[in-house]
Amino acid sequence: MTEDLAHSPRACDGALVRVFGFLGKRWNGVIIGVLADGPSSFSELRRAVHGISDSVLSDRLTELAATGLVHRTVAEGPPIAVRYELTKSGTNLMPALRELSRWAEDNLDETAPTA
Amino acid sequence: MTEDLAHSPRACDGALVRVFGFLGKRWNGVIIGVLADGPSSFSELRRAVHGISDSVLSDRLTELAATGLVHRTVAEGPPIAVRYELTKSGTNLMPALRELSRWAEDNLDETAPTA
Repeated sequence: MTEDLAHSPRACDGALVRVFGFLGKRWNGVIIGVLADGPSSFSELRRAVHGISDSVLSDRLTELAATGLVHRTVAEGPPIAVRYELTKSGTNLMPALRELSRWAEDNLDETAPTA
Repeated sequence: MTEDLAHSPRACDGALVRVFGFLGKRWNGVIIGVLADGPSSFSELRRAVHGISDSVLSDRLTELAATGLVHRTVAEGPPIAVRYELTKSGTNLMPALRELSRWAEDNLDETAPTA
């Protein structure tokens, strides 16, 4: 109960503002969802995230790396292989994303306007 | 385990896209967090959501009502009192928002860039 009070909505407005500062940007949540399946190359990510452009995907990966959610590894080649994977912090986000997905399936009309 | 598979990240990309279609818009998550404390008037919401303008708050409340998360009630006056409150669907979102807040507190550096 003490913990619930400490995490009352008003008490965590600051945390929610920070969360939506990056999850609020289009694609970021979806990119994290795809990487939860395992490390991906840039082109695998682009195929999995329908509708994203190369330049936006590149920007998002840079931001997610700066926020400490995604790690970029370069394996010396040839050919050079760049892989993106979730950090521990990124992996820790998955239970919350799963909770959000369940809520959407139960509560959002698939035909409802989302923009 | 079956349920976890059914909710694997890839399986629920579509749901995440829909969630971030509106939670991804700046302020929406925070507005829902404030309303979780109970019904609020427009001016109470504006005070609670630091930095939001009247016109943006008005737009966001209209969108949240269209998505079925917020209900607007008008009590005949005088003075006429307009109250905003979460619908059942909006209330159902709170466990996921709390999960996100906890994650932010545990995993996001308060000084990290969020934009």
